Amino acid sequence: MRARDLAVDYPSVALDSPALDAAHLLARERLPGIVVKAADGVPIAVLPGSQVVRFVVPQYVQDDPGLARVYDEKTADAICTKLAGKSVRDVLPRKEYREVEVVDGGATVLEVAAVMARMHSPVVAVVDAGRMVGAITAAELLTVLLPPG
Amino acid sequence: MRARDLAVDYPSVALDSPALDAAHLLARERLPGIVVKAADGVPIAVLPGSQVVRFVVPQYVQDDPGLARVYDEKTADAICTKLAGKSVRDVLPRKEYREVEVVDGGATVLEVAAVMARMHSPVVAVVDAGRMVGAITAAELLTVLLPPG
Repeated sequence: MRARDLAVDYPSVALDSPALDAAHLLARERLPGIVVKAADGVPIAVLPGSQVVRFVVPQYVQDDPGLARVYDEKTADAICTKLAGKSVRDVLPRKEYREVEVVDGGATVLEVAAVMARMHSPVVAVVDAGRMVGAITAAELLTVLLPPG
Repeated sequence: MRARDLAVDYPSVALDSPALDAAHLLARERLPGIVVKAADGVPIAVLPGSQVVRFVVPQYVQDDPGLARVYDEKTADAICTKLAGKSVRDVLPRKEYREVEVVDGGATVLEVAAVMARMHSPVVAVVDAGRMVGAITAAELLTVLLPPG
């Protein structure tokens, strides 16, 4: 079994599309993460939902979550406008090394698992002959990795 | 709006239950992560699906995912038996600091977001008066954080 056999249809957004669109898609479809494509349509990353949440929370609140309690809901509304005007590119975590949550269609199950494990990613995109053929979630991967029972 | 208003029913496992049971539950219910409870029933952590995947992949394969390609599927089967005999406790990531993916029912939306962002967690458990009342996923949280549209 190869990555292309496991890949299922999965939503994606363009690197330069509005971050708010990606956030709405994540929310609406209840996705653990969303695949991000470059201008040529090739997937280059996965943006996890927790990262989008991270982006809307100010750094000083992340450093001290207790501070969040003193904000009222109006402040929370104002904070959320942080996403407005930003692109997906602005929200993607900066990676220290050039490695992506993307595998080739010919990758083995273990190879997909290794990439997912290494990247701590809830989703891995699958590319065959230069185009995205779908994605594999951790839950999907576990269904084939696990012994039946 | 408070955490208890956002919390929805969510599966959990006990810290000392078999890791394989947790993995099967994650796979079957297509969950981004699962809530882990201590012996007294209080949630103490969230185990993400990618961490379970991580646990079944040998460290040297994580360090060099290219190695995974040389393994055949029988080897992958053998590797998966790594989970057998292990408890959820064995699979939980060791945290460097004592902080958990759990919030009080009275936590504000921003407080939940801050914990989720800080812990990079796809799910946060909600506790009211010492018992779990549900959990909030990143996708759920975004539905209330985002402006409509």
